[in-house]
Amino acid sequence: MIKFVPAQPAAVNINQIEVALSEIRNDAMSGWLDLPDNYDRDELANIKKAAQQIQNDSKFLVCIGIGGSYLGHKALIDALEKPSYTRVLYAGNSLSPRALNAVMQQIGDADFSVNVISKSGTTTEPAVAFRFFKEKLYKKYGKEGAAKRIYATTDAKQGALHGEAVQEGYTRFVVPDNIGGRFSVLTAVGLLPLAVAGADVDALLDGAKTEKDDYAREPNLGNVTAVQYAVTRSEYWKKKYDTEVMASFEPSLQYFEEWWKQLFGESEGKNHQGIFPASVVYTTDLHSLGQYMQDGRRNIFETMLEVEKVGEVDFAVPIIPGADVDGLKYLEDRKLSDINRIACMATMAAHRAGGIPVLEVIMPDLTERSLGALVYFFEYACALSAKLSGVNPFDQPGVEAYKTNMFGLLGKPVA
Amino acid sequence: MIKFVPAQPAAVNINQIEVALSEIRNDAMSGWLDLPDNYDRDELANIKKAAQQIQNDSKFLVCIGIGGSYLGHKALIDALEKPSYTRVLYAGNSLSPRALNAVMQQIGDADFSVNVISKSGTTTEPAVAFRFFKEKLYKKYGKEGAAKRIYATTDAKQGALHGEAVQEGYTRFVVPDNIGGRFSVLTAVGLLPLAVAGADVDALLDGAKTEKDDYAREPNLGNVTAVQYAVTRSEYWKKKYDTEVMASFEPSLQYFEEWWKQLFGESEGKNHQGIFPASVVYTTDLHSLGQYMQDGRRNIFETMLEVEKVGEVDFAVPIIPGADVDGLKYLEDRKLSDINRIACMATMAAHRAGGIPVLEVIMPDLTERSLGALVYFFEYACALSAKLSGVNPFDQPGVEAYKTNMFGLLGKPVA
Repeated sequence: MIKFVPAQPAAVNINQIEVALSEIRNDAMSGWLDLPDNYDRDELANIKKAAQQIQNDSKFLVCIGIGGSYLGHKALIDALEKPSYTRVLYAGNSLSPRALNAVMQQIGDADFSVNVISKSGTTTEPAVAFRFFKEKLYKKYGKEGAAKRIYATTDAKQGALHGEAVQEGYTRFVVPDNIGGRFSVLTAVGLLPLAVAGADVDALLDGAKTEKDDYAREPNLGNVTAVQYAVTRSEYWKKKYDTEVMASFEPSLQYFEEWWKQLFGESEGKNHQGIFPASVVYTTDLHSLGQYMQDGRRNIFETMLEVEKVGEVDFAVPIIPGADVDGLKYLEDRKLSDINRIACMATMAAHRAGGIPVLEVIMPDLTERSLGALVYFFEYACALSAKLSGVNPFDQPGVEAYKTNMFGLLGKPVA
Repeated sequence: MIKFVPAQPAAVNINQIEVALSEIRNDAMSGWLDLPDNYDRDELANIKKAAQQIQNDSKFLVCIGIGGSYLGHKALIDALEKPSYTRVLYAGNSLSPRALNAVMQQIGDADFSVNVISKSGTTTEPAVAFRFFKEKLYKKYGKEGAAKRIYATTDAKQGALHGEAVQEGYTRFVVPDNIGGRFSVLTAVGLLPLAVAGADVDALLDGAKTEKDDYAREPNLGNVTAVQYAVTRSEYWKKKYDTEVMASFEPSLQYFEEWWKQLFGESEGKNHQGIFPASVVYTTDLHSLGQYMQDGRRNIFETMLEVEKVGEVDFAVPIIPGADVDGLKYLEDRKLSDINRIACMATMAAHRAGGIPVLEVIMPDLTERSLGALVYFFEYACALSAKLSGVNPFDQPGVEAYKTNMFGLLGKPVA
């Protein structure tokens, strides 16, 4: 089980949690809850097959998607840092010509494939980007050749992209009906790009399954760490803490923090309430927002995302004989990972002394198994936390407002 | 002058502003205020010469620095997107072995130089990183060859790095005594990496100077846009708005937002007060924190960083004959930059309708001249805004707390 250390023990009201969990289980959008057990093994085999094909014939895989169709796999690919011949690039997550141009330039004349990820196929940003990359594929490989290099992750039965994929013969993967975008990283949405980037997707799902089974096996709900994290957040919200800052001492977790911000921000930011999720990467941000964390407003709490063992690569501080010019003699021959770990302890102590409650979420390492477990931990905690604050964890009504305005300004025909 | 559009006109108390500006001018750390006029032209010539040398002999320049010695040039280099043979990499802004390894791997056997940026030379993160890269330089070029590839940006007269640079014969540049880290991007701290990355550093300084002169020329302080922005922030703070979210529709401004967060967070996050600075990049974050912005807590205001003309590169949405499969027919042949601009307008209207005050900071383009002006605009507004909230804009006492703890845990000898 992912470890959780609260600032002070959470007072878990078992009845309340059981009611909330039962509501979550009965929700039509709770497919992520049993996903690690139920995931379609045929689909998984097809994902691995497609990934192998892409690794064989493409220097780049352009993943076209926005929000939940993008952040989860970007987060895990960055965190895993696997070697792979094929590099995953991202498009369709903005409308910036510069951003599009940068991806086009990077591909140049190299071989590439496209994974377009969209439940409907009509979300503006990915649909627009898909047109550009389809054009580029046509020019390079012809219409038939292009179709073999397009992988569509979309609705199983309907929608614009599903229709086109069937007609053109793209390889298809499924965005399940009962799993929303921000909970979808362990479906084909995330698993195909992850497999292409060299990740062991079985281990990711196994990690999530182990976490799930640990929760089920625990006789006392109050000992489930995801429950403790949810209850702790709920307590801080009641005590008028309005901002949660996720912090990590590992820069490769920057996009995991972005994924976490989407998960919680989109699930809880409703009805004019919700803890505002923000993120920092230390130690760099200790020389930036660190001042604010130490001495600023005191209605912030910090959640430290810790990794017990980051990886095999480590460095010992070089020894320089002679005078202690840079004042680092006391650090010579010490491992960088130890210094980083101590910086983390020092920071937590400093922030606690400064009046910031610091929670700790601790994972053993940055393997697929641990990251799968971490994803499950946060999804479970997020759904529960939203329920405890009285909002629907699975909708996002506010996302429509800018779209409605934009369609009006762009003159989109009314259906 | 950088344009500023407040949600409602700011009520500028001229006397109060004059007192605050006079205090800022008399502060020992206000060197950035007249920097665009006073910058040492010999130093500038030397920076350009060194940049040329590095561009001639190095595939990579490793910039070693943290906080203000790193964020400013990273922000502007990303925003400018200039072509340059030499690629700028960053180290010494974390203690992660993974992050260090990534830079080492990227350099591989290629030719490289190092720009170590540290006022004292004893800040732990850059000092540790400097040891690793010095070792790598020695191995590749020998001690003498290495010294020719080390550029030290440090104190003019004293400190560990200054001493070493003099003794070893590194090329030296100056971190001025009267300019703090987060205000230092238009000194050698930022200008050398920027010049190496292909930026026109004269134009950057000229842009800042134009902005400065515009303020001086304006007879009514209330018409100075940086004053308006500072006063507007101050008004929101008094009205219990506790979080400011900077937003942009241009992904290449992501690190400019990070620079802004440091500037304001470190200047104002003191005495248990200060607006918490956060950032988003749209449209991607409209499918993430967008839900929160639309419907979450209503004590947030948003500052939209707008660019009137991003650049020459643009794309028209490809035309696909036949049925309107993806529902984008109404967008065919329209420029991506126009769609992006309309998405921005749509978002501001949606957020305003949702009860979020939206301020606008508008720059004409992403040239050196405009970015220089923008830097000056925010520095000026930040110093003033901090003064108006009664804190010292130029210190960062809270940054010491984690260091003190860390030195204790690491067993650093007491001086």
